[in-house]
Amino acid sequence: ADDAGQVERLGAAARAAGTIIGLVVDIDLGTHRTGVPPEQVATLARLTAETPGLEYRGIQAYLGHIQHVADLDARRGALAAATQRLSALVGELGAAGLAPQLVTGGGTGTYQQDLAGGVFNEIQAGSYVFMDVEYEDCGAVDGQAWPFEQALFIAASVVSTRHKTHVVCDAGLKAHSVDGPPARVVAGAPQGARWRPMGDEHAAIFHPQMMGVLKAAGADFAGAITAADEDAAIPWPADAPKVGDIVWLQPGHIDPTINLYDALLVVDEDGGFETWPVDARRSSR
Amino acid sequence: ADDAGQVERLGAAARAAGTIIGLVVDIDLGTHRTGVPPEQVATLARLTAETPGLEYRGIQAYLGHIQHVADLDARRGALAAATQRLSALVGELGAAGLAPQLVTGGGTGTYQQDLAGGVFNEIQAGSYVFMDVEYEDCGAVDGQAWPFEQALFIAASVVSTRHKTHVVCDAGLKAHSVDGPPARVVAGAPQGARWRPMGDEHAAIFHPQMMGVLKAAGADFAGAITAADEDAAIPWPADAPKVGDIVWLQPGHIDPTINLYDALLVVDEDGGFETWPVDARRSSR
Repeated sequence: ADDAGQVERLGAAARAAGTIIGLVVDIDLGTHRTGVPPEQVATLARLTAETPGLEYRGIQAYLGHIQHVADLDARRGALAAATQRLSALVGELGAAGLAPQLVTGGGTGTYQQDLAGGVFNEIQAGSYVFMDVEYEDCGAVDGQAWPFEQALFIAASVVSTRHKTHVVCDAGLKAHSVDGPPARVVAGAPQGARWRPMGDEHAAIFHPQMMGVLKAAGADFAGAITAADEDAAIPWPADAPKVGDIVWLQPGHIDPTINLYDALLVVDEDGGFETWPVDARRSSR
Repeated sequence: ADDAGQVERLGAAARAAGTIIGLVVDIDLGTHRTGVPPEQVATLARLTAETPGLEYRGIQAYLGHIQHVADLDARRGALAAATQRLSALVGELGAAGLAPQLVTGGGTGTYQQDLAGGVFNEIQAGSYVFMDVEYEDCGAVDGQAWPFEQALFIAASVVSTRHKTHVVCDAGLKAHSVDGPPARVVAGAPQGARWRPMGDEHAAIFHPQMMGVLKAAGADFAGAITAADEDAAIPWPADAPKVGDIVWLQPGHIDPTINLYDALLVVDEDGGFETWPVDARRSSR
């Protein structure tokens, strides 16, 4: 919760239902999404502790604005400042008789430093389970290689191969969220092939040898595709995927992409498959 | 289908299953996604007609690259050229004994001209049922007001109101696809309020009076939010939405946004509600 009205309504709802709701006070340390400013935490924590029907459980500070900062020194510096502020706050709350049982926050992009900081006792990292292009490219906060492997891929089927520049697969806007980086082609097409959505149900897989032709064309993308097809001096790439081939894509941003699927197909170590339903798919709406 | 291999595999599959599959030949008139060039249509149509297990049903040409062209003269000109080519092709196919029963294509962005052209006998318009920001802004091809009203909205709940510049609602990247224009705020917030995603489960609803403050800040968006909060000369907007209020959003691009939901809540003319499942949600994957 991040305001008094929420605390009061939740307390009333808990009392009406004859139950107890455990609550953490949400703190804004710079993401500016939800959360109270640090100097107002104690007041809201006290209100929570004193409201019948509620149990004051602690504090939460998700530092969303820091997770993907590419400059590692900047990411570390911002996190160090936030951790210092949070540490002081934990002390202030303790002195006021409001010691937080739970100090929850952190994420995949900062988890080593979150742990080393010694303030959080719960880390909210989730993307590390599967990873994605965004986290792979921004790197681990300690500057070392990620200890997490890419573990989730989209199996796109090639459905049309009518152009020299690209083949078309069935993984478009309904199969991959485009809020983050584009999906990365990791197998099933020549090294360096690029995925680009071509509508709701389709995407192009551009051949790496054709990127120069397309870039030279600038805005007239469609014209460049036609020109390449009609130019006898440009051969059809022999190693392009064929209709029915699977092209494996690494998602750009894992969370909203998983949200597009009802189930994950999981490969066991023994080579068997299991289907895991995505239970939480609708829970955030 | 758009190549001989597909036609042969579909024929074999139909024969193996003891059934007949009706097939249209897909034509590329500039979208460069799927489809054969016009000059190859007759060959593929003949192969389809002669393949046991298949029934040659006609031709399809979806002009995806034309639907949203904002310059109406350019949209009309491109469509006229495509229609002329398609019309000639229908004649050629007829002369070759391959007259297409079905000539399918067209869309919301061109439907009046699609009909007037007299070539299509099936129009693939779908977005017109609900409309969206993208189609509203690009306008009808005849230059008149759309005869279709906006008919689908996202009900976002305000969950946090800690900043002068914006409130935060629960409709983020998992509730609205961001491949197209941002969602438009149509009710529940002051006129001119702007929706911007703030992660997987959240979005900001920026107050119209605060857009100047934010624009002046340039890249330091977070700093501008803090500065406004701390500047006593900037009042808290009295008409900002409150926690629990519903803000109504018009989707930017309807197709991949509907794909995020399992059901639509439909308001009957008598004021009652019905829940319509989104049956096709997974069918394109």
